[in-house]
Order: sequence, then C-alpha cells, then structure tokens
Amino acid sequence: MLVVMHSHATPPQIEQVLAAIRRMNLTPHPLPGAQRTAIGITGNISVVDPRSLEVLPGVLELIRVTKPYKLASREMHEADTYVRLPQTTIGPGTFTLIAGPCSVENEDMILRTAEFLRSQGVHLLRAGAFKPRSSPYAFQGLGQEGLDILGRVRQRTGIGIVTELMDSETADAVEQVADIIQIGTRNMQNFSLLRRVGRSKKPVLLKRGMAATLEEWLMAAEYVMAGGNYNVVLCERGVRTFSDHSRNTLDLSVIPPVKHLSHLPILVDPSHGTGKRDYVPAMALAALAAGADGLLIEIHPEPERALSDGAQSLNFESFICLMEALRRLAEPLGKTIP
Amino acid sequence: MLVVMHSHATPPQIEQVLAAIRRMNLTPHPLPGAQRTAIGITGNISVVDPRSLEVLPGVLELIRVTKPYKLASREMHEADTYVRLPQTTIGPGTFTLIAGPCSVENEDMILRTAEFLRSQGVHLLRAGAFKPRSSPYAFQGLGQEGLDILGRVRQRTGIGIVTELMDSETADAVEQVADIIQIGTRNMQNFSLLRRVGRSKKPVLLKRGMAATLEEWLMAAEYVMAGGNYNVVLCERGVRTFSDHSRNTLDLSVIPPVKHLSHLPILVDPSHGTGKRDYVPAMALAALAAGADGLLIEIHPEPERALSDGAQSLNFESFICLMEALRRLAEPLGKTIP
Amino acid sequence: MLVVMHSHATPPQIEQVLAAIRRMNLTPHPLPGAQRTAIGITGNISVVDPRSLEVLPGVLELIRVTKPYKLASREMHEADTYVRLPQTTIGPGTFTLIAGPCSVENEDMILRTAEFLRSQGVHLLRAGAFKPRSSPYAFQGLGQEGLDILGRVRQRTGIGIVTELMDSETADAVEQVADIIQIGTRNMQNFSLLRRVGRSKKPVLLKRGMAATLEEWLMAAEYVMAGGNYNVVLCERGVRTFSDHSRNTLDLSVIPPVKHLSHLPILVDPSHGTGKRDYVPAMALAALAAGADGLLIEIHPEPERALSDGAQSLNFESFICLMEALRRLAEPLGKTIP
Amino acid sequence: MLVVMHSHATPPQIEQVLAAIRRMNLTPHPLPGAQRTAIGITGNISVVDPRSLEVLPGVLELIRVTKPYKLASREMHEADTYVRLPQTTIGPGTFTLIAGPCSVENEDMILRTAEFLRSQGVHLLRAGAFKPRSSPYAFQGLGQEGLDILGRVRQRTGIGIVTELMDSETADAVEQVADIIQIGTRNMQNFSLLRRVGRSKKPVLLKRGMAATLEEWLMAAEYVMAGGNYNVVLCERGVRTFSDHSRNTLDLSVIPPVKHLSHLPILVDPSHGTGKRDYVPAMALAALAAGADGLLIEIHPEPERALSDGAQSLNFESFICLMEALRRLAEPLGKTIP
Repeated sequence: MLVVMHSHATPPQIEQVLAAIRRMNLTPHPLPGAQRTAIGITGNISVVDPRSLEVLPGVLELIRVTKPYKLASREMHEADTYVRLPQTTIGPGTFTLIAGPCSVENEDMILRTAEFLRSQGVHLLRAGAFKPRSSPYAFQGLGQEGLDILGRVRQRTGIGIVTELMDSETADAVEQVADIIQIGTRNMQNFSLLRRVGRSKKPVLLKRGMAATLEEWLMAAEYVMAGGNYNVVLCERGVRTFSDHSRNTLDLSVIPPVKHLSHLPILVDPSHGTGKRDYVPAMALAALAAGADGLLIEIHPEPERALSDGAQSLNFESFICLMEALRRLAEPLGKTIP
Repeated sequence: MLVVMHSHATPPQIEQVLAAIRRMNLTPHPLPGAQRTAIGITGNISVVDPRSLEVLPGVLELIRVTKPYKLASREMHEADTYVRLPQTTIGPGTFTLIAGPCSVENEDMILRTAEFLRSQGVHLLRAGAFKPRSSPYAFQGLGQEGLDILGRVRQRTGIGIVTELMDSETADAVEQVADIIQIGTRNMQNFSLLRRVGRSKKPVLLKRGMAATLEEWLMAAEYVMAGGNYNVVLCERGVRTFSDHSRNTLDLSVIPPVKHLSHLPILVDPSHGTGKRDYVPAMALAALAAGADGLLIEIHPEPERALSDGAQSLNFESFICLMEALRRLAEPLGKTIP
Repeated sequence: MLVVMHSHATPPQIEQVLAAIRRMNLTPHPLPGAQRTAIGITGNISVVDPRSLEVLPGVLELIRVTKPYKLASREMHEADTYVRLPQTTIGPGTFTLIAGPCSVENEDMILRTAEFLRSQGVHLLRAGAFKPRSSPYAFQGLGQEGLDILGRVRQRTGIGIVTELMDSETADAVEQVADIIQIGTRNMQNFSLLRRVGRSKKPVLLKRGMAATLEEWLMAAEYVMAGGNYNVVLCERGVRTFSDHSRNTLDLSVIPPVKHLSHLPILVDPSHGTGKRDYVPAMALAALAAGADGLLIEIHPEPERALSDGAQSLNFESFICLMEALRRLAEPLGKTIP
Repeated sequence: MLVVMHSHATPPQIEQVLAAIRRMNLTPHPLPGAQRTAIGITGNISVVDPRSLEVLPGVLELIRVTKPYKLASREMHEADTYVRLPQTTIGPGTFTLIAGPCSVENEDMILRTAEFLRSQGVHLLRAGAFKPRSSPYAFQGLGQEGLDILGRVRQRTGIGIVTELMDSETADAVEQVADIIQIGTRNMQNFSLLRRVGRSKKPVLLKRGMAATLEEWLMAAEYVMAGGNYNVVLCERGVRTFSDHSRNTLDLSVIPPVKHLSHLPILVDPSHGTGKRDYVPAMALAALAAGADGLLIEIHPEPERALSDGAQSLNFESFICLMEALRRLAEPLGKTIP
C-alpha cells in the first residue's frame, strides 16, 4: 500500500497520516521526493480498510500493492493445480473437452449426447437442470427431474457430469449427481453460494462474471478455497463491453495473466463467448492456442429444436470437425487431447 | 421480431424461414425490399427461443422488437407505482432519503444514526447485517446480531429499516426486521433470490447490476413482480466501464428511460457510484435534478473509524449540509422532501 | 513511480532494478516489507519510459504515482481558469449556454437561430460547417460556405460562434470565424490537430473522446496548453459503454474529479450524451446541479427537417422551457445564467 | 429500417409516420401485430437521417436493418481481397508478419532489425517516424529524419515499410517511403485523414479505434475505399474495457464476423493488445488459430533500451521462437507463412 501526498501537503498533515497508519498496527515508510512525499505501508493490511486513509487532509491518492488473494495465487502456491476426476484430469499438458446441451430437455437427448461424446473420447457432459434465465417466463430447466436424468445417464454411460448450481436449497441434490459443480457467471459474486460449494467435496467450475476483473474472479475462487475446496477450475466466457458484433467479448487475453498470477486451470466457453454457432470453432482453436486447459462447449443433437441457446450450439457433425481440428492443433502446441 | 434475409437469399431459403416461424405457432409477414427481404413475426414470441431462426440458411440477422418485460412496463401499466411504507411513501412528487452506515457495527452507532436521521426528518435507515464482500477475509457483517440491533433500534425510534438479503437461508430473519429488503448489485441476477423476495410481503430495493442493461434490470424486477410482489424500487448505483476516475460510473442518464419505459420508482446511490465522499454531494444533487425519486446514501458517525466503506461515507455534519442543499433544489423542481 | 518486486525476488534482482533506475538518472528508494520489497522512484520520470523496468527479472508490477499533466493540473495552477470571450466569460460562478443546430444548413436557419438565442440572452451559437460523419455518404457540412454564413450572422447579430475544426487545412478559415474552436470527440487524440490549435489565439472547446480516461483527456488539454494556448474548455459528451438505453453514457460523475484535478472549466453536451430529445432537459438540469460550468446543446428551428441529428435537437419552444427550468435551478446553486 | 409503434399508438399517429416516410421518398410497409404495429421501410435510406422518425408521436423505437457499408461489405463483393505489395501479398491462405520497433530511433537499429527480419523470411518492417504519444512531453519520433532512415534501409535491404501517417501535411513524405500507410487507432475516425489516404496509391493498414464497433470500423474502411483506394488491411489491436489485467482487451472474437461481413484482410497486433511482452506469443498464436491473416508485432534489438513501448517489444531471440511456433501451427491450419 502506498499513500501519495499532495504536493502542497504540510508536515503536520504527513504526520497525521503516519499516525493513522500506526493506529492500524501497520508500519509507515515516508518516501520524500522532489515534488511530493509518498508513504509506503508494510504489515498485514488485509484486516483493515485502508481506503479511510484516502480522505485524510493532504492525501492525493491511495495505491494498493499487495494482491488480496492468497490460496489462488501462484506466488503462494507455485505448482500448477490438477483437478482429478473419476473420468479424467484437468490441468496443463492436456486439453479437456466438456460438451453438451444448454439444458436437459429429456432423457433421450442426454443419452444420445452422452453416447456420442463417449464415442468421440470426451469424458465430461455439461447440461443444466436448473437454468438461470433472464426472463421469468422462459424455460427454467427440468429441475430435479433433470438431475435424475443426468444421474441415470451418468450411471449408464460412465460419462462425468458438469451441471450448474443456482442456490443452496438444491446444493445437496446437485452434489449427488455432479462430477463438477458449475457456478454461473451471474453468481460469480453470490458469496453465500461460493461459501456453500467451498464446503463441497466436488470440484467447482467457476465462470467469470460479466464485468469481473481478474482480481475479483480470483477472489471468488479464493472464497471457495478458503472453505477448504481447492479444486477450482476457472472458465472464461466473455465479458460485457460496448462491442456488439457478438453476444459477449470473449477475453482470451486473460489466459496468460491467469497462468501468471494463479495456479488454477482455466477453460474457455466459446459458445457463450460468441453466441453464434458459426463463430465457435475459430474461437475454440484460438483458446487452445492461447494456452487454455480446455473448453466448455454447447452441442445439441438438433440445435434448431433446442429449448434454449440453440443458435450457439453445434450439431454432432460440426463437433466432430472441430474435434479433428483441435487434435491437429494440439500436437504442435505440446498438448494432448485425451 | 424481424428476420432480415441475406441479399442473396433464395426463394426456397425464404420459404424455409416462413415454415420455421409457422412451426413455432407464430405468424410470418414477408416484407420484400429492393435489396433484400425481411420477415416480420407476430404472435406470442415470449414462449419460444427465436434465436434458432438465426442459423437457418440465408438469414442475415434477427432483430427483436417486443420488450420482454410486462409487469414492469409502463406500456402495460401506465400509472406510476408508489411504494407505501409505514413511515413514508416512495414515488414521484417526493424525494425519499435512505441513509446510514455500510454495515451494522454495534448498537450504539445504529441508535445514534437513527436518532440523528429522525432529527433531520429522514424516515429510513440503511445498514447491512449481512455484507457481500469481495474478500472472504474481510468483515462480513454481524449477521443475526446485526438484525437484532436493527430490530431494537426500529422499535425504539420508529425509523424504517432497509437492509440487504444475500440468500434464502436468512430471508425469514431479514423479512422480520426490514421495511425494505435490499437486493445487492451482485445478486441482481440471482434468480433464486429474486423468486424468494417475489413471495415476500415486504417491498424490494433492487440495485442495478454492474454490467446490467436497462432491459436486464427491468427483467430482474419482472422476476420479483411475477411472484406477486409489485413493490419494487429500482436503485442505480453505478456501472462498470473503462473509466477510472471513480469507483464506478454513475449512470444518471438511465433515469429518463426508466421513467419512460417503466412505472417503478428509481433511487440513486451516489456513495457507491462515486466511491469518494467528496464527490457524493454533487452527484446527489444531480440525481435529484435528473428526476430520481430519492437517494440511498452512506453516512457514518465517524467515517474514519468505519469497518467498511468509510471513504465514501459522509459524516453527520456533511449530511446536514447536503440535506439543506437538496431542500433548496427540490422546490424549483416541484418535489417535496418529507 | 513504484516498482513492486515479486515475493521471491532475489537480492541480485533487486540490485539490478536499482541500477536500471540509476541509469535513467532517477533515484531509487528501496522499501523492504514483510512479504516483498517495493522500490520508490523519485526524479523527473516524464522524460523516460519506465515501463521497461516492468520486464526486468523479479519485477511483479510497476505503479505510476505522478500525474503526467502539469499545465492542466490544479496542483500546479490553483486558481480556476476563466475563458474570456468578446460576448461572455466561461468559468465557475456562471453557467454558459452554447446552443444551435448540428450543422449549418442554410443562412436563414442560422440567422433565425441566432436571433432567437439573442432574444433568450444566449451569447454563443454552435453549428458545424465541417461535420465528422461516420458514413462517407452522409451530409458532410457546407464547408467554406457554412463558415461564410456563420461569419455574416456573427457580424449581423453579434452572437459568438462555436464551430468544429477537423483538420489543419481548414484551420485558418475556421479561426477567422470562430470565437471558440471546437475539437470533436473523434479528434481528441489527433495530436497534430491539438498542436495546431495550441498555436491559435482562439479558445478551444475540447470534447472528451468516446473511450478517454480523465487522464488522457487532461493530457489532450495539455497538448493545447503546451503550445501556448491556455484557453481550453473541456466538454463531457458521453462515453462508450455496454449500456444501450442511450446513444452514449453521459458521465456526469467526471465533473467533481475534473474540478478537483484541474482548473479548467467544463461544459456538458446532453444532446450527444443521450441522443434523444426527450432525455435532454433532465440531463441538462443534472449537469447544472453536478457543478458543470455550462451546456452545449442542440436546437433547431424544425428538428423534424434537420439534415443531421434532428432526433436529439430541441425546438425553440422546448429550449425556452429548459432555459426557464435552468434559471430556477441556478439560483439555489449559487450560479448565474447571464 | 423498421419503425416500431407504441401499443397505444392511434391510427392517425400511424398515418403520420407513413406520410413522413413517403416524404423521404421511401416506401412504408405497415405490419400490424396483435400488440402493436411495426412499419417496414424500403428504399435508399442512406441519403436521409431517419432518426428524425423516432421523435414522431406514437413511435416507440427505430430499428435499422441495412448495413451502411457497401464497398467494404462481403454482400457486395463476395471474393476475398488480396493486397498485393512488391514484397508479398496479404490475404487468406497466407499469414503475413509485419515486425519492427515502435519508433525509428536511429539508422543502425532499423538496419539491424531489417536484416534480421530478412534472415527470418519476414518481408515487412514496421517503425514509426511520427509517433502519436499521449503526452506532449514524450518522444514524438524522428519525423522526416526517421522517414529518410526508413527509405535508405528499404533500398538497401529490399524490405517493405509500414509506417504511420498522422496528418495530411506529412502525407506526401510518408507515401514516398511507405509500402503500407498505417492509420493509428486514435485516427480511425479522423475523416480528413481517411479521405487523404483514399486518394493514395499505397495500401492502408487501418487500426481499429479503441471504442470502435465493427460497423464503425468498416465505415472507416469505406471512407478510404470511397476515395478509390481499395487496398485496405484491417488491424485489431485491442479495445478499451473495464478489464485491467492487460493494457487493452484484444478482441480476437472480431475476426470471424469481420470475415463474415467483409472481404478485407485482417491482421492482429498482440503487442498493443496486451502491452506486455510475456503475453504476446500466446496471443499471436491465438490470432493465427482464430483466422487472422497476419500479425503486426513489436520487436526491438534491445527492448530494455527502447525509447517507447519497450515493455511490449520482443527481442530477436524471442521472435525467432515465436516464428517457429507460428510455423508449426500454420500447417495444420492450412496456412503458409511465406
């Protein structure tokens, strides 16, 4: 933390800031310059709210230095995290595919999709039983019935299940079926929900919020990890910007800093990122090239008949083409697609 | 809904789109132009996902015409909504102040604040017992103890209580104490929570999400109203942009379109909007001039000692100055401050 | 400037950074903390590019402390700037109105507008002879003929002229007619143009770029001032965000920080800010309440027939209503509208 | 164009809109629905400003259908554009590298860079003689001396030159030396400059503006093409968002829609996009995988000593590694790197 004083700040004003810092049990380090004085602060600032220093007379600005995340930080934990599942492992070196429809519509389509995925060597199926929809009048998912379908298909095909959890009330039920619990973009800062999955034994797929900075995203991971659940997988799915050529702006450039600042694996969801089926393959390949550890991708046996998000779902044929392109690209990048 | 065809679209492609629309039980209206054909759609589109039309061959673009909100819409409900509370009424004509500290820190400071507010003619106190904090290591609020404090101060002073609800588990407890239940910006699209307060008898203060469009915000209100709770008060608190001169970008320009498109009252929170105490009064006055129905504002007996958000809290003295300035301004604007 | 070292940075790495700083003729101040070392830098950093320090081994982050603007900064020049024109003065205490059509369409409409404005006590007319249009096929303004019209109307009515300069080729001609030279939002970082008006004797109205931070905006003013022209008036006109309820997001919350960090006057353009005639009056009043020094506002004798931007232009009648509302509001705010 | 009427709009109001459309020499097509009437418009709308319809009584909204660009549009010109240079050709099928320092610092470093690039099979060198800098006090480039250096190095090594043009005054001089004229991000909507290069015989590299929509970007290309210069190469270099983990948000997801809507080639600048040397290779590979036609990339013989943007420049060794990785990736993607 650095307190920058106004160039006209008086010695008593500087003294007052030093005293305030000491009252917080922190150590001030005055740093006089030609034009102004800055004051470095050392000590454990995570327990105080140093923004209150900002309003003391003579203070120009407050600059934070320390990153607030610890457990999610690579500085604290240098080795890459590998999230181990019964079906596969997510982490550097491999490139994991998670595919499936937006929502569980009926048992037949989930079974068909699971069998198709297994035939393609894909180990994880995504599908929502509980769907966050921006309209209360839109299809909200099959709920418990959807979970039951997922459970039966899991048992029958051995495929791993990734499904979204929207609230604590349904957490036990989701936990029973899911191999990975998905936290959706709109719940990235639903701290009660993060605390709940922090107590879970199942890995958590944490989607980035629509307007979340990297720090806020890692702090959301920190919430889960602080509860004891270290198996967090990040998922970039596009952020909200002025750009209107796609549904969201897929921020692939977040991948290198995530890898730099954190040890957690990161997937990319090009389906929500673009919102348009035709643009998905290009962004899927780009995600692989940019260093992502895998993809979350929407496919549907009949996208034209999907109850939700059909426009961004690939059909099976297109998915096969994409898989082939990904496999060709993975090798020169030193990744294997299991 | 309008489907815009590619200029090279063939008659069979157009025919295919018309058929797809009819299969959705909607009526297509072909609209041939010099350069291309567009197809208008009429009927109840809210039950289908017409985005799937977008991927049919020959389709250039899909343009939505109808607004998806109904209960929150002024088209459906022309008269302004007045939210009636035991202590006061929120709606056009008056300008309601809701003030108080970020969080309940102890009984003494809440009591002092409540008594101060009553002495200033302010009827509603805001303070959080449950606090959404971006760090799991930061002060998370006093929880049930905080609610108990609010309940006792309410009884003793008669002041109305506005306090945040973060999850369904604590909904009953919050409902018992709150005159208005606040839904925070990070939970604006926590649809499970919105459904829960839709069943509540208490009015809901719905803060705008950090990256929420006006339509998404009104759809969040629609969730609450669809559950039977029509007493929704909107609250603009700043959105996330590239701008770095303040904590958020307070979007006062949302007020006229809110008034145009909806009948719900709208408040402004200049404290979170700016993040800086010195900038609060100017934006509070601007909110009044822009047509807001009131303010949500952070005050603290001793901002320098606040456990959270002290940097954006006014002290009592500054609040008195602001009240005076607001009263002077309200009169020429035809508003009364009760 | 502060260099934050990685927590694992070795003493030789720290030494290397200290040496690099000294090679730049700056003074390093090591600041060892519990977790990591930070290094403060003092000296004249404006002549070097210290970003190169960022890539030295062991460096985590570089944090800039000093503001790069000098002439535009209130720290360097505490007193408010008043821009004095033959017709009026722009600066704190008064609230200046600049009104007129988007573009000069013909002499009659400019004359009618000028006479109307004079009758309302408004001293400055805005109208473009050269129009920056996003389409090469749209009306680009009357050019020199438009300037001639403005010159004749100026002479006949005594009204001051505010008109846009788009390039150096037309600078002499614009200078001859304009009382204030407008630099449009798309040219805020057209540095050649800024240098050109820095050599002008006429005041400059500098509109904020669509994605300009406050610092970039003040640096653009600095370009003009560094050339010797200190008469710069800032103008907020909305920034580009994800929000789609208005043409741009009018950032009124920039006004208090502008006043805090700079001594330059600031106007607001609610016409471009909202893009919709009906929303202009509310935002005009809000700008006054927020502390702006005036308005730039589009009016047109017959908005329905305007060649450009008719949808955001007020007609004369609405402008009279707005003037009355502004006058009523100015008084309690301690401002006079000349 | 579609005019959406209010659900309460009266028949005379609808009639008035129909009449207004006809007065613009356009054809209205009323489209009555269950809830409201919409009115389709056909005809040449590019010559009128139909936004004025928006303010007629009873009108809810105006929805534009036609894209305003013609020459840049793939609908009008289906075949991909290949920009042919003396040294190489830019367009689909190949992947063109343009590399070099931010600015010409002296002849030696340009010569060394050119020779290095030739040895790597790279045909185009980028370097600025005129530099747009946000501070008037920063190094602004060597100007004419820089152009002379570029000219001599071009002659000596045969390398093609890509250099930025900032204003019309220096256009002749830049044209003489440049094989491609670069228009920088801050000048993307400097329409006078776009018109000037529209008259040039040299191809134009058009960087995307920091807050430019895809439509605005293609309209800027349209300006150049409308002047007769069809050799436009687009260049994505990151847009301005709330994200703070990199200097800009590199929008790779713009590539598929650019390819869909336009026939122009598109390059990516990962150096400005990320602002950080370490993140450049990952984003360069991702750009190739996403379908870009090439890269604009900053390299410097000694990045630590660069006068500008050293932090985002690769040194020669890192560039060689990147080239190797790109070549490995190009093959499975069906692209050749000449």
